[in-house]
Amino acid sequence: MIIQVDPDIESPLKAAILKQIHDLGYKTTEVTTQRASYVVGTGKKEFDVRSIGHLPGIQDIHIVSDDYKLVSRKWKVNRTRLDLGDGVVIGEGTFSIMAGPCSIESEEQIERTVTHLLDNDVKIMRGGVYKPRSSPYSFRGMGLDGLKMFYDICRQNGIKIITEVMQPSQIADMLDYVDVFQVGARNTQNFNLLDELGKVDKPVMIKRGLSGTLDELLQSAEYVFSGGNEKILLCERGIRTYETASRNTLDLNAVPILKEKSHLPVIVDPSHGIGIREFVEPMALAGVMAGADGIIVEVHDTPEEAASDGQQTLNFDEASRLYQRMRQAYQLREEF
Amino acid sequence: MIIQVDPDIESPLKAAILKQIHDLGYKTTEVTTQRASYVVGTGKKEFDVRSIGHLPGIQDIHIVSDDYKLVSRKWKVNRTRLDLGDGVVIGEGTFSIMAGPCSIESEEQIERTVTHLLDNDVKIMRGGVYKPRSSPYSFRGMGLDGLKMFYDICRQNGIKIITEVMQPSQIADMLDYVDVFQVGARNTQNFNLLDELGKVDKPVMIKRGLSGTLDELLQSAEYVFSGGNEKILLCERGIRTYETASRNTLDLNAVPILKEKSHLPVIVDPSHGIGIREFVEPMALAGVMAGADGIIVEVHDTPEEAASDGQQTLNFDEASRLYQRMRQAYQLREEF
Amino acid sequence: MIIQVDPDIESPLKAAILKQIHDLGYKTTEVTTQRASYVVGTGKKEFDVRSIGHLPGIQDIHIVSDDYKLVSRKWKVNRTRLDLGDGVVIGEGTFSIMAGPCSIESEEQIERTVTHLLDNDVKIMRGGVYKPRSSPYSFRGMGLDGLKMFYDICRQNGIKIITEVMQPSQIADMLDYVDVFQVGARNTQNFNLLDELGKVDKPVMIKRGLSGTLDELLQSAEYVFSGGNEKILLCERGIRTYETASRNTLDLNAVPILKEKSHLPVIVDPSHGIGIREFVEPMALAGVMAGADGIIVEVHDTPEEAASDGQQTLNFDEASRLYQRMRQAYQLREEF
Amino acid sequence: MIIQVDPDIESPLKAAILKQIHDLGYKTTEVTTQRASYVVGTGKKEFDVRSIGHLPGIQDIHIVSDDYKLVSRKWKVNRTRLDLGDGVVIGEGTFSIMAGPCSIESEEQIERTVTHLLDNDVKIMRGGVYKPRSSPYSFRGMGLDGLKMFYDICRQNGIKIITEVMQPSQIADMLDYVDVFQVGARNTQNFNLLDELGKVDKPVMIKRGLSGTLDELLQSAEYVFSGGNEKILLCERGIRTYETASRNTLDLNAVPILKEKSHLPVIVDPSHGIGIREFVEPMALAGVMAGADGIIVEVHDTPEEAASDGQQTLNFDEASRLYQRMRQAYQLREEF
Repeated sequence: MIIQVDPDIESPLKAAILKQIHDLGYKTTEVTTQRASYVVGTGKKEFDVRSIGHLPGIQDIHIVSDDYKLVSRKWKVNRTRLDLGDGVVIGEGTFSIMAGPCSIESEEQIERTVTHLLDNDVKIMRGGVYKPRSSPYSFRGMGLDGLKMFYDICRQNGIKIITEVMQPSQIADMLDYVDVFQVGARNTQNFNLLDELGKVDKPVMIKRGLSGTLDELLQSAEYVFSGGNEKILLCERGIRTYETASRNTLDLNAVPILKEKSHLPVIVDPSHGIGIREFVEPMALAGVMAGADGIIVEVHDTPEEAASDGQQTLNFDEASRLYQRMRQAYQLREEF
Repeated sequence: MIIQVDPDIESPLKAAILKQIHDLGYKTTEVTTQRASYVVGTGKKEFDVRSIGHLPGIQDIHIVSDDYKLVSRKWKVNRTRLDLGDGVVIGEGTFSIMAGPCSIESEEQIERTVTHLLDNDVKIMRGGVYKPRSSPYSFRGMGLDGLKMFYDICRQNGIKIITEVMQPSQIADMLDYVDVFQVGARNTQNFNLLDELGKVDKPVMIKRGLSGTLDELLQSAEYVFSGGNEKILLCERGIRTYETASRNTLDLNAVPILKEKSHLPVIVDPSHGIGIREFVEPMALAGVMAGADGIIVEVHDTPEEAASDGQQTLNFDEASRLYQRMRQAYQLREEF
Repeated sequence: MIIQVDPDIESPLKAAILKQIHDLGYKTTEVTTQRASYVVGTGKKEFDVRSIGHLPGIQDIHIVSDDYKLVSRKWKVNRTRLDLGDGVVIGEGTFSIMAGPCSIESEEQIERTVTHLLDNDVKIMRGGVYKPRSSPYSFRGMGLDGLKMFYDICRQNGIKIITEVMQPSQIADMLDYVDVFQVGARNTQNFNLLDELGKVDKPVMIKRGLSGTLDELLQSAEYVFSGGNEKILLCERGIRTYETASRNTLDLNAVPILKEKSHLPVIVDPSHGIGIREFVEPMALAGVMAGADGIIVEVHDTPEEAASDGQQTLNFDEASRLYQRMRQAYQLREEF
Repeated sequence: MIIQVDPDIESPLKAAILKQIHDLGYKTTEVTTQRASYVVGTGKKEFDVRSIGHLPGIQDIHIVSDDYKLVSRKWKVNRTRLDLGDGVVIGEGTFSIMAGPCSIESEEQIERTVTHLLDNDVKIMRGGVYKPRSSPYSFRGMGLDGLKMFYDICRQNGIKIITEVMQPSQIADMLDYVDVFQVGARNTQNFNLLDELGKVDKPVMIKRGLSGTLDELLQSAEYVFSGGNEKILLCERGIRTYETASRNTLDLNAVPILKEKSHLPVIVDPSHGIGIREFVEPMALAGVMAGADGIIVEVHDTPEEAASDGQQTLNFDEASRLYQRMRQAYQLREEF
């Protein structure tokens, strides 16, 4: 159950509401986000909305039977749209492209990529400065200095950035240099990280786990929302299966299912989803047609020399063609 | 290695070719299809094409390092197109729609479906008369009588049919009443069935196994081709994964990968691929954008009353809308 | 619901029983096996046993809520034991070892293996003459002639044999030369084959599908039982997962679960289950401790030269050691 | 390549070694653990040990071609044994039992469990105070206060404890109250956590990821070792597959494979591995026979009332019987 309360509700009124709910055998979690105040009640008993609906301070009550509550579409009529500022919006009614290298490597690399993005009217650049790597001996990213350089160049050019955060202790340092935090597939169930991201006022894109279920992804989003941050994006990036012909198995079924279950925007990552450069385009286009709100794609001026993920990275020409085609596919989808 | 020989090559010449290849340590399989004659050589030694290329009777020699040979795209420049007659063609340069119920149930059902297909200019009807069912107590199809009725009505209306064959002993009886044989996901590696389908001159659509790899699917197609039948379609219909939010995980990565590896047409089955009626449309459209040569979709006038698979079956209105949208998506793809 | 009826029940009595059950909204399947006669009723309504229990000709009635009925343990107190003759019994209270090569290759090979088995008091020899192979160009077995040779040598030495059958048309020819039919992992859901094996009076061992669920395996066994053959063995042989460090993932969880769900004996195949020769022993021993009624293991006098599966095949010395250790482990288990 | 150097090597000597290796095109990582000092070189070039073997300060050089180096068995003759003090040792030549509840709930619960463990001569108690939960609304553990209580009671009774750590910031607080840190399946690739655990002098047990490969598990262990901590245990706890009859699929293949690849002890968790109380025993015994160095099992005085995981938790009687049987199985294994 989700109870939306007046943001400036007085303590005694709130206490009265909580007591009523506890008396019904429900546990409660109080949530205050950028947008509103909620009390989330979890329990198993049958519940009659009228039993508390008359209490002062309550704006609305919704019964949500899913395990996740606040990210469920069952209570929220309007889909979530995220405004990154400067006219950059993600979600319903628009199509977002996020492009850039796997890893931030140098000032020159950022500048070349920014020029490419500006030429193609792409507003969000991706790029990692903290890289989760299976082996401790692999390149692990340029770190905070790289991030500051990345952010500064992009801001000067009106480009928003999305970059991965790996642990709670990085958040404070990164906060001023990030437009969208990304939670990687290996951290989808890093609950402490999700808790902390619930406390910041920056959008968070959560990638589905390596072999995460859609319900787990939604529960992870619930961590962030219930922590106080409503600005969440979900990302399908392929799952681990027995098939070895592709790096991962891009599960586009996830797109309509997530959009049915949740009000959050859904982004598709075809680069990791198939892991083979020449097939990123058809999978990106398939993602658009499946209903994605945006695509995140790995792009590099010379993929062959990229510090990581070169085998699944498009060069600028390939990327430019893809942007155009995705926009045409999105336009066709909108006309349907 | 694939050696294309003159179809009317004289025995001594052929024997000489075979001897040469055996002397190189290769095993040989002689294949004669509707279209041409081949000798397939399998072995591991390095091989110089010039060592036998001069022999009379040889038209062409191709080195194919894949485990599958005849279905590989490495030797065949032109993609396979299947002509079902009456102007119905599947493959490169066209987009095929196959629609109809999971199970053939009655004459009235067939007639209603045919009318629907004619109204929408759909040329191929699907429908099962032999149904593989997990439980021996489930409905197992109308059998041969159902097939004859199905075929006759469709033929009178210029509609081609595709239907599943489950075992070798059914082939002879079915042969005159089938336009395309379908091999189901549980029979992808029923090698005896594939062997026998290699001996008929009717197209065969092979569905990927429940958890089959793409290489296994291609090897199964190789059984049919090496048996003497070049008329083969591949079908992605979703694989089994840990995810339970959908019936299967539609692996659209398979589309560009199969089309890169093989010259055979690739069909996508979004009905089984997601298993949820309201999401069949986005997945079908995604399949088109991924590069499919056609879509096979379950349609019924009253899905709620279908003998099987009702939960993933479109009604006629939903289907009509889908056909139109798929054609628009295909047109856009062609314009790229 | 399973209704056990008098084997020599008169037609009018049986018709009366069937009518009663149909009136309750149940469908019925009549089953007559080597051991007894049953009517299996499938339906969803609540059912009071007393409503038909008084009818003459009925021996017993069992409510079985599982999707599978006759193979369920819910109605059969005693576990199934299979008597192969000459004192060779499989099931509860005994531990069976089946050993031999992947493929039957020659008379000498059979004789050497038989000697090895006799030396070690192993009573059942495995060996394939029809080999399901992913590629049409691989060795596909010695066929019926090989089978006759295999069977004759073993019979002369008091050894029983188990060998794979791939399609219905092979059954009649094989029948006189087989002690146990094996259904391979690619044929677990070859329902026509299962139907036909339901009509013979020889034990059938059904391997779990490549990525088959335990419920599917039990349903496949239900095909054989409901066809009239109660003599069934189940075999866990590893499933397909994302892990590539082993050929398959041996799922020993299957052993206690299958033995809880069904009254049928459960055999473990560690050779395919891990696919690595030096680790077959620990996995076989683990299978014994998990509760297996028997182990089937690949053995060859010179594994390095085996026609197939050499990498997972034990030599005679390794096998002899394993037999002894498995027997000790089984003895310990029995003492628990 | 692993170069073992004198722990008290002088700087110029070490610099000379590093320079030589860099000149060969290798990258180096300097590692100092509780036991020794190493330089790990990673690169792809062929390398002749003799080219640097003569340098002073070098004790030994090992070529290790695996992606993981320090945890590989290729360079370390003797298997790792961990001495927890007070005679409690884990690894080669002994069999360790770790038992206790999923969650620490109360002082009384700890005391009852400790009494049970003492009665059964079990030396290591498990119990979580920080619980990773899919839902933010679930019980998340007693936290640090619970840990102190847990540790104190156990220490007074000579029992060692193992408990899960979820994030780097918890390590310092937990350090004085933990005998073995556990890294849970959702944190197997939480690389920052692994980095930090590399800096402490306490054993770390790393659970295999939800769908982690064995190579990834070994790479995660490499993080800890290369961070400076050699005291590592690996734990197989079941993987995620399509099978829903059990909570996870316990992959006992992992046991012999990990012990072949690595010198680290391998523990099996049958409780999570099958997730069904009555089948924990056979799977634990199977784990022993597969070669496990120890078993970690969930035990509670009243599993029906446990705060979490009750459905897979043994009561004290069941647990006592299991300990005895595991010891008998281990004894038999040792006699082989």
